[in-house]
Amino acid sequence: MSNKPSIPAGTRDFGPEVVRKRQFIFNTIRSVFELYGFQPLETPAMENMETLMGKYGEEGDKLIFRILNNGLDNTAKHQQLREDFEKVLEGKNIKGITERALKYDLTIPFARYVAMNHGQLTFPFKRYQIQPVWRADRPQKGRYREFYQCDADVVGSKQLLNEVELTNIYHDVFSQLGLTGYELRINSRKILTALAESCGGAEKMIDITIAIDKLDKIGLDKVKEELFQRELNEEQVTIIEKYLNISGSNEEKIMQIIPLVGNYPSGVEGIQELKTVCSNSTTANLVIDFTLARGLNYYTGIIFEAKAPASVKMGSIGGGGRYDDLTGLFGVPNIPGVGISFGVDRIYDVMEELNLFPEDVYTGTQVLFFNLGAEESSKAFNTMQLLRKQGVRCELYHESAKMDKQFKYAEKKNIGFIVIIGSTEIQNNTGVVKNLKTGVQQTVPLADLSNKLFI
Amino acid sequence: MSNKPSIPAGTRDFGPEVVRKRQFIFNTIRSVFELYGFQPLETPAMENMETLMGKYGEEGDKLIFRILNNGLDNTAKHQQLREDFEKVLEGKNIKGITERALKYDLTIPFARYVAMNHGQLTFPFKRYQIQPVWRADRPQKGRYREFYQCDADVVGSKQLLNEVELTNIYHDVFSQLGLTGYELRINSRKILTALAESCGGAEKMIDITIAIDKLDKIGLDKVKEELFQRELNEEQVTIIEKYLNISGSNEEKIMQIIPLVGNYPSGVEGIQELKTVCSNSTTANLVIDFTLARGLNYYTGIIFEAKAPASVKMGSIGGGGRYDDLTGLFGVPNIPGVGISFGVDRIYDVMEELNLFPEDVYTGTQVLFFNLGAEESSKAFNTMQLLRKQGVRCELYHESAKMDKQFKYAEKKNIGFIVIIGSTEIQNNTGVVKNLKTGVQQTVPLADLSNKLFI
Repeated sequence: MSNKPSIPAGTRDFGPEVVRKRQFIFNTIRSVFELYGFQPLETPAMENMETLMGKYGEEGDKLIFRILNNGLDNTAKHQQLREDFEKVLEGKNIKGITERALKYDLTIPFARYVAMNHGQLTFPFKRYQIQPVWRADRPQKGRYREFYQCDADVVGSKQLLNEVELTNIYHDVFSQLGLTGYELRINSRKILTALAESCGGAEKMIDITIAIDKLDKIGLDKVKEELFQRELNEEQVTIIEKYLNISGSNEEKIMQIIPLVGNYPSGVEGIQELKTVCSNSTTANLVIDFTLARGLNYYTGIIFEAKAPASVKMGSIGGGGRYDDLTGLFGVPNIPGVGISFGVDRIYDVMEELNLFPEDVYTGTQVLFFNLGAEESSKAFNTMQLLRKQGVRCELYHESAKMDKQFKYAEKKNIGFIVIIGSTEIQNNTGVVKNLKTGVQQTVPLADLSNKLFI
Repeated sequence: MSNKPSIPAGTRDFGPEVVRKRQFIFNTIRSVFELYGFQPLETPAMENMETLMGKYGEEGDKLIFRILNNGLDNTAKHQQLREDFEKVLEGKNIKGITERALKYDLTIPFARYVAMNHGQLTFPFKRYQIQPVWRADRPQKGRYREFYQCDADVVGSKQLLNEVELTNIYHDVFSQLGLTGYELRINSRKILTALAESCGGAEKMIDITIAIDKLDKIGLDKVKEELFQRELNEEQVTIIEKYLNISGSNEEKIMQIIPLVGNYPSGVEGIQELKTVCSNSTTANLVIDFTLARGLNYYTGIIFEAKAPASVKMGSIGGGGRYDDLTGLFGVPNIPGVGISFGVDRIYDVMEELNLFPEDVYTGTQVLFFNLGAEESSKAFNTMQLLRKQGVRCELYHESAKMDKQFKYAEKKNIGFIVIIGSTEIQNNTGVVKNLKTGVQQTVPLADLSNKLFI
């Protein structure tokens, strides 16, 4: 029974070095979330089918990994199960076959949690969540079937203060990761609403945002073409062209948007929101971008999108925005909120490309004690126990072997220091400490070995 | 479309306080693993069906959560799928219906990883892994369908040094968690082998260990009864009775075991293993327990079981042992190893019962700044940004509201300090700092606010 093992397409093993680098990103994000008063939440990998279904649109639903019920070999149920399976073949989810599924994002489980616990929670409820999600997408470069999301949301508050804090969180996280050249684009869905109103009514909103969303990819002329196809007239397309041509500093952009949407209540509100957030945020990387639309139906106020430094071809490394109603779908109305998300896999790739991971992220074991025999290793062993109490990460080579072999092990494991305790050293109660990077070697009393030596 | 939401049976949401306490346990275990030179590994939640199946016995296989393939609504495949489904009803796993499943433990995915990567790994390979696993067990108190395992294994080394280090890891982790009264029971499977040989041959091993395993539950007389039923004779049962009656200190136990198994090579080896581990381990809580058997076929040398302090009715909170062949099932022979595991859910319950979580585990936000209006909160806002740079976790109440309401929020969120900046304080560049536990209140220059004040 020997078969060549493999892992499912679109999933990954993370070896030691990669786990450490990912932990560096997670820990940075987590500690910043905590600095701003966000609290951790974890929800199960599985949710009941009815919690997830119908929340991500028809295409999204198809990408949900469903879990087969156990106990299907119970013959008493077989006739019913055959009938149930026919319905599954029609694309339905039938409880007899599949009751549970893997979560597709962190937002719906969060909404489910808030709906189940809203009586006990203190509002505004500020939660963060760092967990994997699963999607049956076609695997390709940078797209996985299992990947982590890092979300922070404040629910139960309509105050713009929350939006401001979220921009500061982006800034603190990216600064701490060394991604100083990031750009945080910001817009308000209310301005898009006002634009639609100025172009023939709110029902044009979807047509306009779909076309605008393609600006980066297809350019202005093609966007105009599409707008004509979507039955906007010359005058309306001219307004949108003016809108898309807005440029300059944030202040200049605000000056240019006023004549376009300043006569609509939602336009006035949207402009006010942008002014408030921009003037209170401590991030200088905030860029008003009226072409930012972010999806169609979910967001209702300020929206964000974080872009990697321009030198890296990566695009969005985070996003979010305000929504009016988190939990209505679960029978609990009137819980508004605002949230952001970090795209960890992409941030990882950007940091690799820009060589931003700090050196000490790579370090596992700091010190390898050489094993020169029973008595020597017993001495080493006791010394290690004392060092570990000081927080020094150390190990003893597992068996008495040639020096060469032990050196090689240290090298392969990227261990910075070795300590050799031979018979002379036992007599003198010393150890030979060698820094493998500099090659510097010194004999040190064992009692003086400490964390300071191994940095 | 409003339905009352719920989560799947046997799964749990972890709210902020519980996540923090669990993180405390995970971080303690992780940092000790790292002190001993273990490196992190993470594997996907899903594995290919053939990786998991047949590894856990017939009963285990039935508890594996299988994932339904996507795209079953492709009508061209329906006839084939109906035939496939008939085989699923017979208890088989057919690729057309289900190719993947959720991992059932961390050992098989680790073995799969080592088998796939053994050419690149540096041996001995010391890995730890802290991840959830899934089992379709009947949910009951203390038994969940999603739970975490924390494993550390060394593979590619037969040295007993590894066993010694693992006992020290148990000791360091439990000491750091405050579980000083734990007991680490230890035995060698080789002694059980020798006992079986002294009772009519190695083929009696399974009968004997099954009976011995029940000693705690059913008592000596019933164990003897069972041994007779399993066709051991009077003389053999007398040997086993002597074996089970061994008592005293570790040294005394060793003295008593010698006449029973000291004539068999495996007995001699087993005794030597126990002596070596006991004399080199730094844990005083190591207890030789010849009745410890731990499963039937997997382990081949030293075995461990960690017991909660006797004052808590909980039983095993960890276990492990040595095995000869990790990856043979995946076509890569001759990789021996030894590993241990921590039962985090049970450790959590024990710590709750003994009230062992440190106070500061509970603390999220340290300081709440009161919101007394636009100008005041703007001042508070800037002050907070400076404090966050020093690592102070703080938040501003999200809107201007009555003091009462803001106090209540601090209380509910268990925030230890509040800072009030009103118009007088703005003029003086001060803040009123109140410690909500002691009630002590002082006016402090804003420039003097620092981490030290809020501990």
